[in-house]
Amino acid sequence: MTNFWEKYVEIRSYSETLCKPLNTEDYIPQPEEFVSPPKWHLAHTTWFFEEFLLRSKLPEYKLFHPKFSFLFNSYYNFVGERTVRINRGNMTRPTVKEVYEYRTYVDQQIKILLQDHSTPEIENVLELGLNHEQQHQELLITDLKYTLSLNPLFPVYKSSFSLVNNLNSNSGFTLIKGGIHTIGHSGTSFCYDNELSPHEVLIRDFEISNRLITNGEYVEFINDGGYSTFNLWLDEGWAWVNANKIKHPLYWHNIEGQWHQYTLSGLLMLNPDEILAHVSYYEAAAFALWKEMRLPTEFEWEASSGQLDWGTRWEFTSSPYIPYPGFKIAKGAIGEYNGKFMINQMVLRGGSTATSKNHSRNTYRNFFHPHLQWQCTGIRLVK
Amino acid sequence: MTNFWEKYVEIRSYSETLCKPLNTEDYIPQPEEFVSPPKWHLAHTTWFFEEFLLRSKLPEYKLFHPKFSFLFNSYYNFVGERTVRINRGNMTRPTVKEVYEYRTYVDQQIKILLQDHSTPEIENVLELGLNHEQQHQELLITDLKYTLSLNPLFPVYKSSFSLVNNLNSNSGFTLIKGGIHTIGHSGTSFCYDNELSPHEVLIRDFEISNRLITNGEYVEFINDGGYSTFNLWLDEGWAWVNANKIKHPLYWHNIEGQWHQYTLSGLLMLNPDEILAHVSYYEAAAFALWKEMRLPTEFEWEASSGQLDWGTRWEFTSSPYIPYPGFKIAKGAIGEYNGKFMINQMVLRGGSTATSKNHSRNTYRNFFHPHLQWQCTGIRLVK
Amino acid sequence: MTNFWEKYVEIRSYSETLCKPLNTEDYIPQPEEFVSPPKWHLAHTTWFFEEFLLRSKLPEYKLFHPKFSFLFNSYYNFVGERTVRINRGNMTRPTVKEVYEYRTYVDQQIKILLQDHSTPEIENVLELGLNHEQQHQELLITDLKYTLSLNPLFPVYKSSFSLVNNLNSNSGFTLIKGGIHTIGHSGTSFCYDNELSPHEVLIRDFEISNRLITNGEYVEFINDGGYSTFNLWLDEGWAWVNANKIKHPLYWHNIEGQWHQYTLSGLLMLNPDEILAHVSYYEAAAFALWKEMRLPTEFEWEASSGQLDWGTRWEFTSSPYIPYPGFKIAKGAIGEYNGKFMINQMVLRGGSTATSKNHSRNTYRNFFHPHLQWQCTGIRLVK
Amino acid sequence: MTNFWEKYVEIRSYSETLCKPLNTEDYIPQPEEFVSPPKWHLAHTTWFFEEFLLRSKLPEYKLFHPKFSFLFNSYYNFVGERTVRINRGNMTRPTVKEVYEYRTYVDQQIKILLQDHSTPEIENVLELGLNHEQQHQELLITDLKYTLSLNPLFPVYKSSFSLVNNLNSNSGFTLIKGGIHTIGHSGTSFCYDNELSPHEVLIRDFEISNRLITNGEYVEFINDGGYSTFNLWLDEGWAWVNANKIKHPLYWHNIEGQWHQYTLSGLLMLNPDEILAHVSYYEAAAFALWKEMRLPTEFEWEASSGQLDWGTRWEFTSSPYIPYPGFKIAKGAIGEYNGKFMINQMVLRGGSTATSKNHSRNTYRNFFHPHLQWQCTGIRLVK
Repeated sequence: MTNFWEKYVEIRSYSETLCKPLNTEDYIPQPEEFVSPPKWHLAHTTWFFEEFLLRSKLPEYKLFHPKFSFLFNSYYNFVGERTVRINRGNMTRPTVKEVYEYRTYVDQQIKILLQDHSTPEIENVLELGLNHEQQHQELLITDLKYTLSLNPLFPVYKSSFSLVNNLNSNSGFTLIKGGIHTIGHSGTSFCYDNELSPHEVLIRDFEISNRLITNGEYVEFINDGGYSTFNLWLDEGWAWVNANKIKHPLYWHNIEGQWHQYTLSGLLMLNPDEILAHVSYYEAAAFALWKEMRLPTEFEWEASSGQLDWGTRWEFTSSPYIPYPGFKIAKGAIGEYNGKFMINQMVLRGGSTATSKNHSRNTYRNFFHPHLQWQCTGIRLVK
Repeated sequence: MTNFWEKYVEIRSYSETLCKPLNTEDYIPQPEEFVSPPKWHLAHTTWFFEEFLLRSKLPEYKLFHPKFSFLFNSYYNFVGERTVRINRGNMTRPTVKEVYEYRTYVDQQIKILLQDHSTPEIENVLELGLNHEQQHQELLITDLKYTLSLNPLFPVYKSSFSLVNNLNSNSGFTLIKGGIHTIGHSGTSFCYDNELSPHEVLIRDFEISNRLITNGEYVEFINDGGYSTFNLWLDEGWAWVNANKIKHPLYWHNIEGQWHQYTLSGLLMLNPDEILAHVSYYEAAAFALWKEMRLPTEFEWEASSGQLDWGTRWEFTSSPYIPYPGFKIAKGAIGEYNGKFMINQMVLRGGSTATSKNHSRNTYRNFFHPHLQWQCTGIRLVK
Repeated sequence: MTNFWEKYVEIRSYSETLCKPLNTEDYIPQPEEFVSPPKWHLAHTTWFFEEFLLRSKLPEYKLFHPKFSFLFNSYYNFVGERTVRINRGNMTRPTVKEVYEYRTYVDQQIKILLQDHSTPEIENVLELGLNHEQQHQELLITDLKYTLSLNPLFPVYKSSFSLVNNLNSNSGFTLIKGGIHTIGHSGTSFCYDNELSPHEVLIRDFEISNRLITNGEYVEFINDGGYSTFNLWLDEGWAWVNANKIKHPLYWHNIEGQWHQYTLSGLLMLNPDEILAHVSYYEAAAFALWKEMRLPTEFEWEASSGQLDWGTRWEFTSSPYIPYPGFKIAKGAIGEYNGKFMINQMVLRGGSTATSKNHSRNTYRNFFHPHLQWQCTGIRLVK
Repeated sequence: MTNFWEKYVEIRSYSETLCKPLNTEDYIPQPEEFVSPPKWHLAHTTWFFEEFLLRSKLPEYKLFHPKFSFLFNSYYNFVGERTVRINRGNMTRPTVKEVYEYRTYVDQQIKILLQDHSTPEIENVLELGLNHEQQHQELLITDLKYTLSLNPLFPVYKSSFSLVNNLNSNSGFTLIKGGIHTIGHSGTSFCYDNELSPHEVLIRDFEISNRLITNGEYVEFINDGGYSTFNLWLDEGWAWVNANKIKHPLYWHNIEGQWHQYTLSGLLMLNPDEILAHVSYYEAAAFALWKEMRLPTEFEWEASSGQLDWGTRWEFTSSPYIPYPGFKIAKGAIGEYNGKFMINQMVLRGGSTATSKNHSRNTYRNFFHPHLQWQCTGIRLVK
């Protein structure tokens, strides 16, 4: 048990560490449907342990509050009715303090569960719950950035918190030889169901860049009219650019001719040598075409990942998010974790500076709709 | 000066008294565009004094913060750019604490202004500012009710705060003789520009009810199929009922066959003898038709107001909100107060239990769009 | 009977005369919900006689087609289900030819009804049906203009059909003395229920312009920045201007610096001496404010109508469309004709060059939502 | 030249043959943005030859009409401005007759071009234009079905035209051995750029059904609660089902407990032994999950196509529409044909009874958004 409990404490407390710099006010707003409030992230991750472990596995477990399942269920139809997603930012009760009490209560009960009732099945769900919490840690911080960015005061979350200011160091391309590669997760360590089962994929020779695109390179794309050259864009990307008047990555501001970017440390001058962040798939694909290169497939990325320096940006691949051969949806609510989202989204690989420590791996499949910019996304090219 | 300063302190402090029962979280959300957060009300009313008095009238006045005008201007195009209205709930900074500091700062400066620089013009704007703050006191409490009502926990704002639980006492109808009546505000006491100038209106004999419609009477309308009888409704009202699946006044819940209503004291059983609240103009008009009576015109209401017991509900009239003969829009931003809203809205008369003390009068013209239910509105009939 | 039948034939055949210049294709499209296809107008007016006369009054009447009531009912909830309004332009069957056959069939049956079964009640409904058809004649031609105007080929409906090219002739203002005026329709001749019952209204002295505003005067408003001066506009008007990028009356085109207007005779140069048409209430109100005058009330208009040269444009009044004192909604479907629209619309008085002969009168109350421009509307000012 | 001209005449005249049963009225409406009017299809396919051949290749070619490019360009940004797509149904001019004259004129000019100026490049574009016209022939007939289906009269296009009444004959599954298969089009015959270039794909053993799903099997899915069982659906599919209240395939009507379907021969009883049509990808995926099988990938489909009896329905694959390795977008407007649509769409293989003769082939990649039902789509399963 010790090991699990220590890991549990470490991950659970990191969620609260992330919230240390927040004012109570910051815990509340949900400016867009896809942006959840910090309070909701803290409570929802706690509900996950209550719903999928304590309720069924801890004898005589008493729910912290009978309505919290309604309030903090995200998308699990199996679990029942829930607050409509867009309403998360309107819930001022429970208060932030009560949510922290909820966390403490559930943590104590999990400790009892682990001490007195641990089984491999419980440990599996616990591990899933911790990985789930890490995913929400990343969302918490990227959602927060989105919310604070709307404020004309450009609030500072933490002056030392560098989410996107990462210098680029490597250069050149690495040649990867084609052939049959095994893709997907093997072994007994934790992974999500969408990384299973390992299978063979035929890949052709390709060269992959050793580094990610920088702000400076992206400014060249802008200066060359990238956002007004229709034939660089996918048709739906071009519609997105025009409908939303997109002219630059998210959080960029052109102030008197000088590019700045909003960061969690406030508004900063844009450093051309740092790695680009906060572009959508549409922008990544247009940029690649402009460079007369392309994005890697998720198989190429995985096949070359051992030779790449990755982990500062989620890297777009040209692969739509679909099941691997033999993918099976698990029974019950846990089966809603991944499979039902396998449509109209693109796979991203790697991990970002917002990703929690030890969370990602080279078989990890992240996924977003092609128009979204609010994650720490970046561009690596292939030729 | 004394008089004004005392009144200023009394009204300004009442805004803060209203907020005493709030948690910090409650100050933030804006669930609909027409519902502003308490924090915004507190800051916006303060900004009004800063913008329209201190900035121009107090020598060497230093703005509390250079961006607050952008943040807390509501709709004054003359004053310049402002945050889009729907974004008010996304602004976590300034914090609630900073907004109270802003209030304190402006109050101190107003004191200096009144002590050292008072003029009739300044006193006029001050009086407008205080009336403006009282209007926002009412909005603050009705907006808050709307926000809290969305929470499945049915939060209690204050257990002793009875916003809509008012017993009905009077009965019968009063006959008012027709003829030429003078309508509008006379004398030197404060009024809004839309109450000026007094003018003669020809009215015919009518009988007006001495009391407002009760919950019990409205339940009869519901039970008689009022919400599914198309020919009781204005065409746009019928579209509103169907598009929004309206089946009862706002805040009513039918729980296992029993009517309840959400109030600022939590969820309560509906008392049939209490006065109906939270209906739209569409509902008021349909109800009147079902009763084979009608709503009074605003002129009839004013002509009979001396004989009515009014002040617990804003009472719908059948009069669209249009200018009185001779109405002139004032120069500059103050002119944006009323005139530009004189389209597509209906006049309400009287005042509600949410209306601040000494704020309303019998010439007061309140106005809302015909589909809105979130004010403490009620129905008085005429035959 | 003769009289009625002759009038019936005259009015019914005028609908078909209006359609003579049309191609079959022109009968079909419905580009906006408020614009109905010519085919629909021809069939709906015919259905009115079938539904409200033949079905109930002509013994053994056989419906032309059992589904036409579903297809050609407009908004009569009493009559039952109907095609959703926005779907009118998608109905290619019945064909145009079949609609003309439907007209012929109903006309023949009406002839029999009048010959063999005429009663005062039947004559009353017939008169309503003929006035209804005249209203649709006007809509047919103004809807058609809207549809053709979307075509970049600027189609000519009829080269000699001058819908809006009317020279302005009169000048000066007429003083009307205040006092108690009787408003509304008296006598036994036909009128709509909304013109009843005559009642006294107190009016103050005013001066009303003897002529309508010209294109040239309106160009001055445009050149003076009228469309970008927020304080000339009602708040909802300003939102309408900005959301729809309104910069001129409907059908105007600025081609290489020269104003043109699309007319049913094709694209023509704008003649500054002709009478302005196709403005919304928002534009009329902004223009009046810019001129430092105002629009008349509908009572002022009616009181002065005997001295005005009217009939080329529907003239905006500042009066919202509400019931006259004592207005009663008729029982059954006929009662849906007017009353249910008495919200959020403004009264227009007079008549336009698109109005059928002998249709309007000085007590006639037309009404439209304040943002609509597609009728032949014009501006007359009062001071 | 002879060969090409004969093929040209054959294909061009088939478009007109398809329109023979139409009334002029049927040529006009566009009920949804994705449904174009027959008139537009006839003109747009003609414009393709004018724009991409005659304008540049035929000396002294005179445009039929200077504005037709604006009216009949579909989505070619390279060619310039065009009518907004949703406006196609509002264009009553040119008339149907004029569009046929346009076709005749262009055909004559193409004949001259082929006689006097033929080159391999011209022949290539001509072949593309003819394949393009065949695609629009299929759209013309499926769009027409959609438009006519909205009419409560259930119009008959042609009583002998059986678009979806195809009996199912085969049975059983065929085992396809895994290994490296070559996918994509080889040889010199015509294909689209998206079928190039042939490349190797690693496939695993699978069994593919010899027949398509029947109406009867799909009724079982409905009767088993398929449309209300959330865990059968992709998340966006479940949202689509609920937002649009989808309860059955497009064109199905349950009349007094009996399933019917609207066809181009009118409303018919549903035959359970016929092949299912008009389902979306969401429905196909949910059905497959319910059957505990899956849809084939496009590679599996192509690898087994030699052993399948295909051509009555476009068959859904589980493959998103993305470029093949080495795909290059052609320069200029022709490059807009396929590549820019490679996002958020699924590949369909085979062909339907609405597909023109000799148009499809086993490497052909059709593609639609996952919610669309209006094509003759069907389901083939794999296990």
